[in-house]
Amino acid sequence: KRLRQLKVQHGWDQEDSIVANDLISEPGPYGLHESMFLITLRDQGTPEQHKLFLKKAENYQIIGCYAQTELGHGSNVRGLETTATWSPEDRTFIIHSPHLTASKWWIGSLGRTANYAVVMAQLIIGGKPFGPHPFVVQVRDLKTHEPLENVHVGDIGPKFGYNTMDNGFLLFNHVKIPHVNMLARFSSVDPATNKYVRPMSASLVYGTLTWVRSHIVLQSGSVLARGVTIATRYCAIRRQFQDRDAPQSEKGETAVLNYTMVQVRLLPLLAATFALHFTGQGMMRFYAESQKKIHGNANAASADRGAGPEETHAGSDSLADLHAASCGLKSLASSIAAEGLEVCRRACGGHGYSSFSGIGPWYADYLPTTTWEGDNYMLSQQVARYLLKSARSVKKGEKPTNDTTQILTEFLARSDMGAAFDIIGKDEDLVAAFAWRTAYLTFEAYKHRDEEKKAWNDLLVDFYRLSKAHSQYLVVKNFYEALQSSSTTDALDEETRTVLHKLFRLFALNTLEQESSEFYQSGATTVRQIILARTNTVMKLLKEIRPHAVRLVDSWDFPDWQLDSSLGRYDGKVYEDLFHRASELNPLNSITVDPYPESSVLFKKDESRDFKSKL
Amino acid sequence: KRLRQLKVQHGWDQEDSIVANDLISEPGPYGLHESMFLITLRDQGTPEQHKLFLKKAENYQIIGCYAQTELGHGSNVRGLETTATWSPEDRTFIIHSPHLTASKWWIGSLGRTANYAVVMAQLIIGGKPFGPHPFVVQVRDLKTHEPLENVHVGDIGPKFGYNTMDNGFLLFNHVKIPHVNMLARFSSVDPATNKYVRPMSASLVYGTLTWVRSHIVLQSGSVLARGVTIATRYCAIRRQFQDRDAPQSEKGETAVLNYTMVQVRLLPLLAATFALHFTGQGMMRFYAESQKKIHGNANAASADRGAGPEETHAGSDSLADLHAASCGLKSLASSIAAEGLEVCRRACGGHGYSSFSGIGPWYADYLPTTTWEGDNYMLSQQVARYLLKSARSVKKGEKPTNDTTQILTEFLARSDMGAAFDIIGKDEDLVAAFAWRTAYLTFEAYKHRDEEKKAWNDLLVDFYRLSKAHSQYLVVKNFYEALQSSSTTDALDEETRTVLHKLFRLFALNTLEQESSEFYQSGATTVRQIILARTNTVMKLLKEIRPHAVRLVDSWDFPDWQLDSSLGRYDGKVYEDLFHRASELNPLNSITVDPYPESSVLFKKDESRDFKSKL
Repeated sequence: KRLRQLKVQHGWDQEDSIVANDLISEPGPYGLHESMFLITLRDQGTPEQHKLFLKKAENYQIIGCYAQTELGHGSNVRGLETTATWSPEDRTFIIHSPHLTASKWWIGSLGRTANYAVVMAQLIIGGKPFGPHPFVVQVRDLKTHEPLENVHVGDIGPKFGYNTMDNGFLLFNHVKIPHVNMLARFSSVDPATNKYVRPMSASLVYGTLTWVRSHIVLQSGSVLARGVTIATRYCAIRRQFQDRDAPQSEKGETAVLNYTMVQVRLLPLLAATFALHFTGQGMMRFYAESQKKIHGNANAASADRGAGPEETHAGSDSLADLHAASCGLKSLASSIAAEGLEVCRRACGGHGYSSFSGIGPWYADYLPTTTWEGDNYMLSQQVARYLLKSARSVKKGEKPTNDTTQILTEFLARSDMGAAFDIIGKDEDLVAAFAWRTAYLTFEAYKHRDEEKKAWNDLLVDFYRLSKAHSQYLVVKNFYEALQSSSTTDALDEETRTVLHKLFRLFALNTLEQESSEFYQSGATTVRQIILARTNTVMKLLKEIRPHAVRLVDSWDFPDWQLDSSLGRYDGKVYEDLFHRASELNPLNSITVDPYPESSVLFKKDESRDFKSKL
Repeated sequence: KRLRQLKVQHGWDQEDSIVANDLISEPGPYGLHESMFLITLRDQGTPEQHKLFLKKAENYQIIGCYAQTELGHGSNVRGLETTATWSPEDRTFIIHSPHLTASKWWIGSLGRTANYAVVMAQLIIGGKPFGPHPFVVQVRDLKTHEPLENVHVGDIGPKFGYNTMDNGFLLFNHVKIPHVNMLARFSSVDPATNKYVRPMSASLVYGTLTWVRSHIVLQSGSVLARGVTIATRYCAIRRQFQDRDAPQSEKGETAVLNYTMVQVRLLPLLAATFALHFTGQGMMRFYAESQKKIHGNANAASADRGAGPEETHAGSDSLADLHAASCGLKSLASSIAAEGLEVCRRACGGHGYSSFSGIGPWYADYLPTTTWEGDNYMLSQQVARYLLKSARSVKKGEKPTNDTTQILTEFLARSDMGAAFDIIGKDEDLVAAFAWRTAYLTFEAYKHRDEEKKAWNDLLVDFYRLSKAHSQYLVVKNFYEALQSSSTTDALDEETRTVLHKLFRLFALNTLEQESSEFYQSGATTVRQIILARTNTVMKLLKEIRPHAVRLVDSWDFPDWQLDSSLGRYDGKVYEDLFHRASELNPLNSITVDPYPESSVLFKKDESRDFKSKL
């Protein structure tokens, strides 16, 4: 607890600079004020509301958070229990938490910091529910910082990581707020007629989440890169065992990174850092383009309430394609990064478990990314739904309008001929094999759902595979296209391009090999091709990339103080630093304990008391 | 730090009872004194040494630890740098750490607690090295508990978990110890002649590690079962979303455990808890039998120094088979348990990340098991070495002497006919398919190494796969045999046996499906069989096991206070407990902070000060 309060304090000192926040790499109490709270006020508030709330928030006169998740409700936003009942008499909304499970939960910055919240609550007018909407609610006194009357608010307690963030809970007992506190840019209640005013287009509302997910994809590359940097540097320094085949004359131990069993764990992750980075960049570009298009015809589309854009515009709208891609890629990219960090930690052997490795806390802080902004498993359903819709469109003979319908159409066209991809010889064929597998799994899902009428629930596992397959295709395609693009080829010298190309092949072939059974089944490859990819090509690529490995992680350019890792030091002084931290910086070593179980005394001597009293 | 000191103190109170220690499920400072220190003194000491050290240790007059790992040397015991130089003049050994990397590191209980250590050091006589041997060395004063002269000892600092254990470092500057401090049951230095006395049999020395690894296998089942219990109970309570296919009349949300995507993650792990438990039991039985046999002919075998028993007795010795099995299974079982716990945590959704889930800290404390007692990747080489040796013996036409050589012989005998296993229809065939895959991969490895003379390093990835395949075969076989054995069939009623049989099939078919590409390649199954196993059989088994899931985890019988989890409560009062812990037990909620960044004050009010001053 003490440590946490210190960090909270530390966060405040850095407050003025967002960049500094990014660099200290720890979630601070103002993170959500600056992101979700300000953005929601800005995007969903009217000019009047901007004046009333946004201005103050920007000046830190009010500190806010975004309260959506409830104790009993995570991904299912429509199931939220908190209510906002319109009271026509005094033109107010009554915010109320009918059950314990309606308690807002996990709300970042709410635990100790925020005095305002954007609360997502079910709008009820005249006894009729109109779904969740955002309301601005004050929760603590601006002077005393005590909770307001009928507001029960507090911190939810320790977590596996992320303990520098004060996640909170929040319950309301019939709290009244004025009409103006419902954020009314998209939908509102007319106080004169007591009628609900519908939003113009659902697409605009969904846009923000698509952006957030695309950003997670972009980040996942550099998140993983930290772990890969530490593990690669350490494994290049650390020596263990002699090579069994080495001649007696070479008595030294071998650098761990020279072992193929270490290479096969780390180097594909090194390739993945670049693959994810290029994919994230591609997504952000794609997003910017879509936004332009949408704003051209926002008023034309009359969105069907209750369905996401993947239902309403499939096959004809680039936003739907982007939305599905952002769901699938967020899921895949954050899984690769989280699991990859743990692989990096273990590749550091015993010392990976020490806090001085710098990987453990980083991993623990990153883990919730696999659950928030859409649970990675839940999101796969959105991708499957979009692909099913696209398959229906293609089956009906509609013309392809984007890449997804394009690859489905091509697959159908070759259904009487089968595929023949030269996955090891030609890069285009390697990408095409991934597309083929996606298309095969899409039409399998189509068959099960639309023709055999299987239950949705019985297909969830297939949908998850489908989403993963599609997302892997997108990563491989994005990586490939980034290498072809003139901006890449112009910026890099010949040798760098060659190494990057090897990383591309390693990433693609290693992924293909891991998912080989789907590639066989779809007929995209032969069994022989996979065996060759595994035993020859991948092993050869590892050997070729090995000499460049340290230079490649250095290109991510993390400064030592940011990595905060004995093992990942740029100068390789691993053991000196580990020893320094353990022996000299470790406050425990100024304490002498009494070791005998009969003794009732805990300490013989405790020189750290001076240190503690300073806290 | 404060928390840790409390726990250390807490550990002492519980000291008198090992069972209590097991129940609190946290590593305490005496854990290694009681296990590694006492066992090493007992097994490797002479009667004279027992009187001198063991007696005192048993009475806690001296507190010890086992100091093997060094800063620069983990798995490679032969590479240890600490030296013990025989000094004939005064009949002493001089213990010395020549470099920083020679510092003992990670030594449990050494950080603050121990005053004695068994130190593994390179024995040097007359300038000649004789490999690592165990020496008893006092490191701290028995009264003041201060480090002795020329001993630099301390705690290595915080870790990812396991912070209730005081892992330490230890350096020696030419410390003299008497001749009697070299543990001399197996090997010794004759003080009269200054000659080294060799051990009788290497097998005896290796026995302890085999036992330790078998015990890890047995434990892994119950370690995983804790996570599976919490996740299964919570997912049976938690409701999210409506089933897409449900009729409008059924408005309630569906229990998360009814979703196939959740079942496919949790139920195979539930099956794994039983599979690992039965396998561990089988290993312990097998170990007891081998020990009997060995003690019959310990003097007959003259072990070749420098090689493990897997080299010297392959094919003819049950200990070699057991040693290889213990290496492979330790690696597989601890990986399944560690990764399974993380799957359980994520299956709990957002709340899995809360400390109140009870899974996070348990997972973090378990993680080092994948590295210690042999890194999981390193161990696979031992298995491969043993299987290669067995393959050579079979190729030479030698008669099979154990199960391993038996399955290799059967594979060769059918090499002109191929296999035809009815994996879905017959359980024996399912087990046989796993054996076939092991044999196929063994002879592939034999071909690469012995015929094509490939470099050992280039085959490490293949060896890892081989070890995994062999270990999975052993788990499937042990599970199958446990279900057939009369002790199981007599103890359980018909219905329980039926459910356990379904768990066996789920575990085996799910594993087979995940490793499907090796099953295709070996010709053990057809592609069609795997598709059927996945889309029909496994999905059907999930549905059949679902109604028994909660009863099955209840059979592990963890009391609530041991699970220490809001989510895994037996009575299902998940949300009440989460709320109680966050709102009432959370000391942070008695603190009121000052939220504004300009303010230099951190707290408005802090009622927790009373609480803190008590510590």
